[in-house]
Amino acid sequence: MLYMVHMQVNIPASLPKAEADRLKVEEKAFAQKLQHDGKWRHLWRVAGQYANYSVFDVAGNDELHDLLTALPLYPYMAIQVTPLAQHPSAIAAN
Amino acid sequence: MLYMVHMQVNIPASLPKAEADRLKVEEKAFAQKLQHDGKWRHLWRVAGQYANYSVFDVAGNDELHDLLTALPLYPYMAIQVTPLAQHPSAIAAN
Amino acid sequence: MLYMVHMQVNIPASLPKAEADRLKVEEKAFAQKLQHDGKWRHLWRVAGQYANYSVFDVAGNDELHDLLTALPLYPYMAIQVTPLAQHPSAIAAN
Amino acid sequence: MLYMVHMQVNIPASLPKAEADRLKVEEKAFAQKLQHDGKWRHLWRVAGQYANYSVFDVAGNDELHDLLTALPLYPYMAIQVTPLAQHPSAIAAN
Amino acid sequence: MLYMVHMQVNIPASLPKAEADRLKVEEKAFAQKLQHDGKWRHLWRVAGQYANYSVFDVAGNDELHDLLTALPLYPYMAIQVTPLAQHPSAIAAN
Amino acid sequence: MLYMVHMQVNIPASLPKAEADRLKVEEKAFAQKLQHDGKWRHLWRVAGQYANYSVFDVAGNDELHDLLTALPLYPYMAIQVTPLAQHPSAIAAN
Amino acid sequence: MLYMVHMQVNIPASLPKAEADRLKVEEKAFAQKLQHDGKWRHLWRVAGQYANYSVFDVAGNDELHDLLTALPLYPYMAIQVTPLAQHPSAIAAN
Amino acid sequence: MLYMVHMQVNIPASLPKAEADRLKVEEKAFAQKLQHDGKWRHLWRVAGQYANYSVFDVAGNDELHDLLTALPLYPYMAIQVTPLAQHPSAIAAN
Amino acid sequence: MLYMVHMQVNIPASLPKAEADRLKVEEKAFAQKLQHDGKWRHLWRVAGQYANYSVFDVAGNDELHDLLTALPLYPYMAIQVTPLAQHPSAIAAN
Amino acid sequence: MLYMVHMQVNIPASLPKAEADRLKVEEKAFAQKLQHDGKWRHLWRVAGQYANYSVFDVAGNDELHDLLTALPLYPYMAIQVTPLAQHPSAIAAN
Repeated sequence: MLYMVHMQVNIPASLPKAEADRLKVEEKAFAQKLQHDGKWRHLWRVAGQYANYSVFDVAGNDELHDLLTALPLYPYMAIQVTPLAQHPSAIAAN
Repeated sequence: MLYMVHMQVNIPASLPKAEADRLKVEEKAFAQKLQHDGKWRHLWRVAGQYANYSVFDVAGNDELHDLLTALPLYPYMAIQVTPLAQHPSAIAAN
Repeated sequence: MLYMVHMQVNIPASLPKAEADRLKVEEKAFAQKLQHDGKWRHLWRVAGQYANYSVFDVAGNDELHDLLTALPLYPYMAIQVTPLAQHPSAIAAN
Repeated sequence: MLYMVHMQVNIPASLPKAEADRLKVEEKAFAQKLQHDGKWRHLWRVAGQYANYSVFDVAGNDELHDLLTALPLYPYMAIQVTPLAQHPSAIAAN
Repeated sequence: MLYMVHMQVNIPASLPKAEADRLKVEEKAFAQKLQHDGKWRHLWRVAGQYANYSVFDVAGNDELHDLLTALPLYPYMAIQVTPLAQHPSAIAAN
Repeated sequence: MLYMVHMQVNIPASLPKAEADRLKVEEKAFAQKLQHDGKWRHLWRVAGQYANYSVFDVAGNDELHDLLTALPLYPYMAIQVTPLAQHPSAIAAN
Repeated sequence: MLYMVHMQVNIPASLPKAEADRLKVEEKAFAQKLQHDGKWRHLWRVAGQYANYSVFDVAGNDELHDLLTALPLYPYMAIQVTPLAQHPSAIAAN
Repeated sequence: MLYMVHMQVNIPASLPKAEADRLKVEEKAFAQKLQHDGKWRHLWRVAGQYANYSVFDVAGNDELHDLLTALPLYPYMAIQVTPLAQHPSAIAAN
Repeated sequence: MLYMVHMQVNIPASLPKAEADRLKVEEKAFAQKLQHDGKWRHLWRVAGQYANYSVFDVAGNDELHDLLTALPLYPYMAIQVTPLAQHPSAIAAN
Repeated sequence: MLYMVHMQVNIPASLPKAEADRLKVEEKAFAQKLQHDGKWRHLWRVAGQYANYSVFDVAGNDELHDLLTALPLYPYMAIQVTPLAQHPSAIAAN
């Protein structure tokens, strides 16, 4: 099942740089693992912003919530979730 | 080059049903042609709304504009465009 | 799987009253059928508005979209969908 | 009497982790007590957010306010309250 | 129990003037009856707008909804309801 | 002359608790004095929020501004003022 | 007593041009009379919009409301009122 | 040339009181000088807020920007500028 | 003097197509004349929308207002104006 | 390819002045280099704000993102990007 997810990252100035850098490394590794697993199907950068549009392919709302809250940068993200359905004009199945 | 496009369809009650139906048939055919051509890479329905999230893969801003304004339902759509860049954590190239 | 759904009904003044009344009767019958089927788990009126908060229990995004777009009043509704996950402090399973 | 309540939790980075953890434990215990008492009828997590949709069943506005402001995490929450009425198409009484 | 109610009136140009005038007369009579009954405790005009702030004193959410939807101008109003609780610094009981 | 005033209190975490407590005591005393003087005609708590709706009865804009800025918690409030006029359907004079 | 008033004019396409022209002539005459009377102290056009910022000098909220609702174009205006107080740094009295 | 300027002052709690007081004194002196020079034509307090509506009379956009950014409190202000044109119904020239 | 102008065109469905087409032809001619005159310095289409961002170079607010309101499509446009000043890092004078 | 970019600078009070000054010097040098390179085609100050409207001329979304995130003040900016297309009434090519 697919979900459009918009993530906006806001790392506070009070977070030590070393801690922020560590979180970003962990975030990247986790994001790539989820992509390899097929859970995080698409990941695009919003041009000019520390933000992304992503498409997740998961079993449902609970798995989506578990994955998103497990992101290392989750505490510093504003996340919006939009559930996606099959579009009747799409030539590919979701 | 990729763009996230959000389309919200608002067909006015004053449009005759036959005309609306004709436009929808043309819209579907055109959307499927663009998907087969690889220009309209993804097309998802927003659950519960007459709206979609789409990803277009075009040469640039002008081609994107030309395609969107050529949509049969374009006069009845509110469209938001977000340019997408390569995300450093993405395992696939845009 | 649960979804919070907010529906705001806006019947245009141009819709003949007999047609509006017929749609409302059909809407009520359909809503009650879905409640009896366990798909539309909760239905509450927002005090002072022609709007409701509802909780749907469906297989996923596609079934939710199919049910919502099948509502007789769907063409006259503004709908917002929020996917719900299990809350760790809830004493009941979703 | 029922109320839809949306709670968004924003724990500031300046709150010591031990204090935050203690508040979360107390919040969970209090939330579960209110659910067992039948005051907090439903509690759902908003997928992807540190937020919930809840339904309270209380004697009125004053009891609702007393319960919400007694939540251990209340000082760190943005709360929106929507009073609910009986929906004429609902098959169950509120 | 008290509720703050904000009503914004938007009478469409397509409503015949005689019908609008009749509804306004009925609205005034009904509003005054509810004030005499003690249900509609306060009624103030928002300066410069066809809008009012009102305070209702009713048994609960259902009675409030029944009264508001019975207003003759209800189909042409945008209504916002805010439940009010006793303020600890108020010298009068609600 | 009447004004609807909405006050939202946002006490920053950096304010020492003793100072906040002192301000709240002063605020309550001042609010009650103004109520006894007839200047602060109504004071209601917004259910679920550290906010209130109030009605002030003062000579005009300047007196209103002087009273509001004299509130001990004024530096921590977001205030919205709406001037009220006599409503033609009100059975009581403002 | 002074008020900042923002008026946005939205004349519907369904209003016959002759009627619109008549209203505009009456609006201008009334606006100029109020300026000569000293009630409508300032009147400025918002560049690029069918809108104005105005300052009214009236006895209070009721007189302001009476004047604004007497404007010939009032039914086609969205009006926002902001009460003004004496600024401590102003070299002129309001 | 006239501009409507809305200034909202937000002095952070972290600014030492002595520094804030010094800035306010300088702000007042500068504001009064500009008024005497005829550049800052009007200055009104928004009732209930640490904000003002002002009208500036300057040679153009550049002079306006230079004056506003020279305000001692400029770093702590949110400023909105609206260019004003001559209103055809105004009895005075801008 | 420069101004950033955002124009959003909303031609109502009730406008006859021949009239709309005539207005568009006149709009194009007028827009090109103003560009040749150096008044309308830049004109860009917003991708995916019937909207543009434009930069006008005029004597001041009044001339800007006169030009914008003279646009044949002005009655069907929502226009936002932002006055521009010389940027200290710009290598070209405005 | 052209993009309209709106940048709003928000330098936090916690950033040491020397560091802020250094960033501003670097920002200016980088901005001027990009202008000389023809990448940053226009740069205008928004009157009364620490903000600018800019037009970038780059190969596409990726180059735009790379340039914007390389700005020394990027961590303190809120950036909005609007892709621009050729306007059919423009007398110059983009």
